[in-house]
Amino acid sequence: MKRVMCIPNYSEGRDLEKVEKITECFRAKENVKLIDYQPDADHNRLVVEVIGEPEAVIAAVLESVKVATEIIDMSKHEGAHPRMGAVDVIPFVPVTECTTEECVEYANKVGKAIGEMGIPVYLYEDAATSPDRKNLAKVRKGQYEGFFDKIKEPEWKPDFGPQEMNVKSGATAVAARFHLIAFNVNLNTSDLAIADKIAKTVRHIGGGLRFCKAIGLELEEKGQTQVSMNLVNFEKTAIYQALEMVKSEAKRYGVTVVNTELIGLLPLQALVDSAAYYMQIDGFKQEQVLETLLIEE
Amino acid sequence: MKRVMCIPNYSEGRDLEKVEKITECFRAKENVKLIDYQPDADHNRLVVEVIGEPEAVIAAVLESVKVATEIIDMSKHEGAHPRMGAVDVIPFVPVTECTTEECVEYANKVGKAIGEMGIPVYLYEDAATSPDRKNLAKVRKGQYEGFFDKIKEPEWKPDFGPQEMNVKSGATAVAARFHLIAFNVNLNTSDLAIADKIAKTVRHIGGGLRFCKAIGLELEEKGQTQVSMNLVNFEKTAIYQALEMVKSEAKRYGVTVVNTELIGLLPLQALVDSAAYYMQIDGFKQEQVLETLLIEE
Repeated sequence: MKRVMCIPNYSEGRDLEKVEKITECFRAKENVKLIDYQPDADHNRLVVEVIGEPEAVIAAVLESVKVATEIIDMSKHEGAHPRMGAVDVIPFVPVTECTTEECVEYANKVGKAIGEMGIPVYLYEDAATSPDRKNLAKVRKGQYEGFFDKIKEPEWKPDFGPQEMNVKSGATAVAARFHLIAFNVNLNTSDLAIADKIAKTVRHIGGGLRFCKAIGLELEEKGQTQVSMNLVNFEKTAIYQALEMVKSEAKRYGVTVVNTELIGLLPLQALVDSAAYYMQIDGFKQEQVLETLLIEE
Repeated sequence: MKRVMCIPNYSEGRDLEKVEKITECFRAKENVKLIDYQPDADHNRLVVEVIGEPEAVIAAVLESVKVATEIIDMSKHEGAHPRMGAVDVIPFVPVTECTTEECVEYANKVGKAIGEMGIPVYLYEDAATSPDRKNLAKVRKGQYEGFFDKIKEPEWKPDFGPQEMNVKSGATAVAARFHLIAFNVNLNTSDLAIADKIAKTVRHIGGGLRFCKAIGLELEEKGQTQVSMNLVNFEKTAIYQALEMVKSEAKRYGVTVVNTELIGLLPLQALVDSAAYYMQIDGFKQEQVLETLLIEE
């Protein structure tokens, strides 16, 4: 079955009754699976993870937009997390039998529908209509409060909906992006400068791996440091490549890897690719993993 | 959901109409998934792979036994593969939320029911009732033709059913066993003696790894040799351990690993265990693999 993941973020993380009303849109829907949802009171924000057949997911997401824009009033919203709308962001990620290009289509479909509800919509990441709109932080800059002016600038004309801020619902950003892998490599040194130098060398902007973002971090309690990476296209920049490059750079400082961490969800193919590298497995297919036979068709 | 895998083997691989009648027992059954089936004309044998909820699988297997014993006449059977019955072997393998001990129960349940159909039944592998019956080759020795005498020996009294050969249906062997991983390591030497020595060192009977069986093989066309292994308990003898031990022994001969092969199905945990070793991943859980969220509950 064609499957997409969607991770909509709503600007409500305190009123659990409202959180329930929003998540309800993803329950007991055919071909839609609510994976997880985390309301955060400090951020006053709700992050929902849902996987399913694209049309079914799109319908559920649009239902949730209707509900959220009814019950959330952005003119009264406070919270630590940057936000610009009641439904703040809606990224689509390909899962099975689905391409990023198709996710761009879904983002456009959802964006258009939300625009027709009188809410300005911006497309970002792979769905962006200009290089300036690729980066969410750049799109969202100014936040809800700043958008009343920002939206009037010609270069910030929304991709869908009115060129006028929606007072109650704010604006919404919709994206298509590839699955992101959060991969941390812990080093047996407390010297942040070393982790920092390694991070700057392995990451794309420093001349390193094309789809790798990295920063150096201190792990004070452990007396270690960390190269914290986001691998934004595991098909082209594999986990093992990032790890081996960190190891190779660490040698220069006489530093070794203590251990690593994979945070959150990982597509099976990313695991298979790296296992196949280290074990020199020839011709292994992810369909050989028994559990793939148990996936609903 | 509790899930078991069953790989029944039937002594019919030529008459595809009969093959259909047997495999039909596994189709369109709730909570039973027919994974694959391979009729082999040379062996005159049918291997079926099915996964599902244990009671549903047991019911389907017993239905298939009824069908197979009706349409197969062992007194007329010819084929290259060793066999002793119309339904030759029925091994149960734990898949999800299921232990080997539970598979022993399923083997007993199925064995008892087949015994009541007037067919002698032997339990083997982890379901064996004596050490002598653990090994299938030992149980099946003499094959269908030889069993008319063998069955009369007190030490070969069947575990279920009559102590008398069933002329039409022969005898059936039922087992519980752990998932077996077929793992081959190819070496950059054409010298079979080297592959042979490595195989003898890494395998259990040679003083090597507890759950590793191994032989040396020649890959004539490639000018290489192979250490061909069966890992019979991947939780205790991991793939990476077998690979690293082969590599370590190969060094003695100045030989290196060209590549490796994983044949057939592999439980996700076996892949995760080895990937975690090579990548030093701390605390990774197989539930972090996205695809596990798509498995039917």
